[in-house]
Amino acid sequence: MNSTTVIGLGPMGRAIAATLVRAGHQVTVWNRTAGRAGGLVGVTIAPTPDAAVAAGDLVLLSLTDYGAMYDVLGSTGLSRKVLVNLGSGTPDESRAAAAWARERDAGFLTGGIMVPPPLVGQAGAYAFYSGPSDLFREHEPTLRAIGDTRYLGADPGLAQLLYQAHLDVFLTALAGLLHGTALVTSAGVPAEDFLPDAMRLLTDLPAMVGDGADLAAELAAGEYPGDLSTVRMMGATAVHIAETSVAAGVDAAVPNAVRSLYDRAVAAGLATRDWTALYDIVRNPS
Amino acid sequence: MNSTTVIGLGPMGRAIAATLVRAGHQVTVWNRTAGRAGGLVGVTIAPTPDAAVAAGDLVLLSLTDYGAMYDVLGSTGLSRKVLVNLGSGTPDESRAAAAWARERDAGFLTGGIMVPPPLVGQAGAYAFYSGPSDLFREHEPTLRAIGDTRYLGADPGLAQLLYQAHLDVFLTALAGLLHGTALVTSAGVPAEDFLPDAMRLLTDLPAMVGDGADLAAELAAGEYPGDLSTVRMMGATAVHIAETSVAAGVDAAVPNAVRSLYDRAVAAGLATRDWTALYDIVRNPS
Repeated sequence: MNSTTVIGLGPMGRAIAATLVRAGHQVTVWNRTAGRAGGLVGVTIAPTPDAAVAAGDLVLLSLTDYGAMYDVLGSTGLSRKVLVNLGSGTPDESRAAAAWARERDAGFLTGGIMVPPPLVGQAGAYAFYSGPSDLFREHEPTLRAIGDTRYLGADPGLAQLLYQAHLDVFLTALAGLLHGTALVTSAGVPAEDFLPDAMRLLTDLPAMVGDGADLAAELAAGEYPGDLSTVRMMGATAVHIAETSVAAGVDAAVPNAVRSLYDRAVAAGLATRDWTALYDIVRNPS
Repeated sequence: MNSTTVIGLGPMGRAIAATLVRAGHQVTVWNRTAGRAGGLVGVTIAPTPDAAVAAGDLVLLSLTDYGAMYDVLGSTGLSRKVLVNLGSGTPDESRAAAAWARERDAGFLTGGIMVPPPLVGQAGAYAFYSGPSDLFREHEPTLRAIGDTRYLGADPGLAQLLYQAHLDVFLTALAGLLHGTALVTSAGVPAEDFLPDAMRLLTDLPAMVGDGADLAAELAAGEYPGDLSTVRMMGATAVHIAETSVAAGVDAAVPNAVRSLYDRAVAAGLATRDWTALYDIVRNPS
């Protein structure tokens, strides 16, 4: 029976702790604000970060950001412990944290859990990990309780990079849904007359742009052929959306940013290519 | 047998003309650049816009923008004709065009076709229309050949508004997919190791945020309860994505715009609400 510590009991930390208990692990928890462990059956509540770290072979960190990790563990003995930081940060912050852990004789893995808390430990849950492969292999059986594991490589920045790239797609799509809704409601059309169709537009995306593998092949080829949805056609619509937003008194930040990609693609001579040619602007903006 | 004219033979105009021919209509076409009617079986090619308009009871316009409509039809007799502008424009441009048509004793409807050209006339195709309801009802049998019809009301701006709100969701999501791909490829991770999962994230969106009806009810209520995906949590990730983009040399326009919504929501005291509270910023940015 492994003993695992979970530090940080926000919704994700609580879900992880509960999942590990169900999987038969000995689980010790700590949270800065006391009382967050309420309702977590079968865990041991540590009185201090020191006690929490001492109790676990593996220490899972579910904190808001990397700053919180330094705050909580800055004066805690970490020698021969293995930390897995599951919180959000930039890849560079992950790399700096790995060096910081090395100086303290601790192992360090980074993870990005790709499902919201209620789905942790459920079928379909998965998480990205990066860091030393031997450490990952040693602790994978424990991590697998959270969800399927996808190990990306030794660079500690990779797990957060992949996590963020997915959240990028997610947050951008959500912003688009809210913005489209604001456009229609500005003219008195109720949100319920728009959002079910708009959601279906996203779930039907593969019918329009192919599944991800098709799109990946097109981007990797870098040719962007096609005359059905050119940069010029899609860009004309992007301009109208941005202008309509302003006229409707709706925030224009996101549509202006999208429009700027098309404007720059046209300026770069890509007007007659498929809309996927925007990729050249996104990956090389200068 | 109705006689219908299609002006503008880009991919959409060609698809409409071919669909109408298959549905048994007498179809006359005109395009500024000759030769675009090549391969369109069963259509009559008009020599001038005047001849094209004269030949049809109903005149469908599939042009890049409203400016093109004035260019093509500015000196053409339109009395007692019914125009349906299916091109992209702002709602205000639609309203101005309706007034322009009225001055010329022409009826005017606006439409927004919600599928790409290859799906015109296929199962699942649909289009929004707005303008005088009697005109719409009179010509709906012809328009139904293009796809299911959704009539929104007399305001000529509504069809384009709904069209644009959908395209807003679509273009924003596509920009997110390209941006996430640029992030991972900047670290040497191939697009094919990212895009299938990212696409699945979009097609699984209802599992995470409910179907559109759930989200519409939440936005309409304006309360934004929930502590699993707060503005503060999602906003922290939005900041990381924007910072990672800059560090990776990837364009930051779209992630900065998304981040700005979260920043403004936090500044407006919405940090502990569900992420859907961003809607208050989007619909009332000032």
